[in-house]
Amino acid sequence: MSTNRNVTAGVLLIGDELLSGRTRDINLSEIAKFLAPLGVSVVECRVVPDEQDEIVAAVNHLRAKCDYVFTTGGIGPTHDDITADAIGAAFGQAVDVRADALEIIEHWYAKTKTPLTESRKRMARVPAEAILINNPVTGAPGFQTGNVFTLAGVPKIARGMLEDIADRIDGGAVTLSRTVATGGLREGDLAEGLGVLAKAYPDISIGSYPYFYENEAGEIVRGTNLVARSTDEPALAEVIEKLAELSRSVGGKPVIDPPDAK
Amino acid sequence: MSTNRNVTAGVLLIGDELLSGRTRDINLSEIAKFLAPLGVSVVECRVVPDEQDEIVAAVNHLRAKCDYVFTTGGIGPTHDDITADAIGAAFGQAVDVRADALEIIEHWYAKTKTPLTESRKRMARVPAEAILINNPVTGAPGFQTGNVFTLAGVPKIARGMLEDIADRIDGGAVTLSRTVATGGLREGDLAEGLGVLAKAYPDISIGSYPYFYENEAGEIVRGTNLVARSTDEPALAEVIEKLAELSRSVGGKPVIDPPDAK
Repeated sequence: MSTNRNVTAGVLLIGDELLSGRTRDINLSEIAKFLAPLGVSVVECRVVPDEQDEIVAAVNHLRAKCDYVFTTGGIGPTHDDITADAIGAAFGQAVDVRADALEIIEHWYAKTKTPLTESRKRMARVPAEAILINNPVTGAPGFQTGNVFTLAGVPKIARGMLEDIADRIDGGAVTLSRTVATGGLREGDLAEGLGVLAKAYPDISIGSYPYFYENEAGEIVRGTNLVARSTDEPALAEVIEKLAELSRSVGGKPVIDPPDAK
Repeated sequence: MSTNRNVTAGVLLIGDELLSGRTRDINLSEIAKFLAPLGVSVVECRVVPDEQDEIVAAVNHLRAKCDYVFTTGGIGPTHDDITADAIGAAFGQAVDVRADALEIIEHWYAKTKTPLTESRKRMARVPAEAILINNPVTGAPGFQTGNVFTLAGVPKIARGMLEDIADRIDGGAVTLSRTVATGGLREGDLAEGLGVLAKAYPDISIGSYPYFYENEAGEIVRGTNLVARSTDEPALAEVIEKLAELSRSVGGKPVIDPPDAK
């Protein structure tokens, strides 16, 4: 059921490997892109280490601030997987091996002829009142505790789990996003006109995203994309035309909604 | 000067485009990898929208908690570039066009024959007591306010700015990181042995990082990397040997410090 409420989400990425730079996160953008068409906007993200106090503090902040919270990471079978305990602590719920979760795991591992070690049974430890989230990729479930959805850290598995929860999300108005590629213009060429448009359309978020990189031939490629976001489709279309006009007026060759916007 | 202190950093990524999923951040991992050999560990990261209150709250939290803070994004010439004002507000410092910053920008644009618009002059707006950070890529400087380093959002520019600040960082003991690729083992095969090792070496951080993806041929590739991190090189070497031994004992063909660890 879609309403006009502004429905928000927070994302909590859990894992030392993200903070050390060893792993580059892709779950934030995947979760945001999954939620957008459901009418939910991500308004804050935090990245914390595998430490219970840090996880608990961040979960409690985000679940009070946002309609929904998504955590990734720390629900595997090893000693550094402490997310279930942290979520239990945040909600004041006991965490133990639960029969329903264990049954899923037993069934999965029997099917794939993988030995069910004590460590793997650990993945059936979920908070007492949590609702399980199906894992179509590797079996061991995620879980929903109140408004907090706890997903795996491996992107392919996290993405699979999201499919099970679309119908648990009561979204608001869908924010549409459209892009004008300005054809190599720089932000400084556009800034004055953009300021005028941003003032004229206060309800539409207008962003300007410069890029600057070396391509495979060693050449510097630079330019700016303009992005407008709104729940109001006709107003958005009007602004997109104005942004294209602005680009042309300062010498650009704008392309609206290019398939490969950088 | 390297000491044995545990020196910490917080990272604040600023920008609606990160929360909408449009842009996938790479600055966190670049900053973490730049800081590691200087003896500084990233302990928290936050991602906030282009909203002054959100930026101020996050900066004030991180600069109280961490020895150093790095912000990225929001220092360009357009209306949505509000980071300088937010940092000024967080520190209670006035923000205005500063002669030293303007001189750099004028010089750069004269050299590159780019018109110096009013909007581009806006990039000379920095907090009153900030120290400038050289931008070897596009001219307009970043700035340091107290223990907070404010960098551009475009990764190539942010990376260039980091080069100017290495000698402003007073790091601690350098945390070394080594990897054992287990040759396709799964976490559940390793978890029991890992738990034993983690208890036996409480001062060494041992992490287990599963991967699971489809390669270009459409095949599922899965396995686990083990990563140990410590400031104590001999102890780390000992643990790495034990991790390789553990992998062999459950049927793996471990490779220590592979060049292409996933």
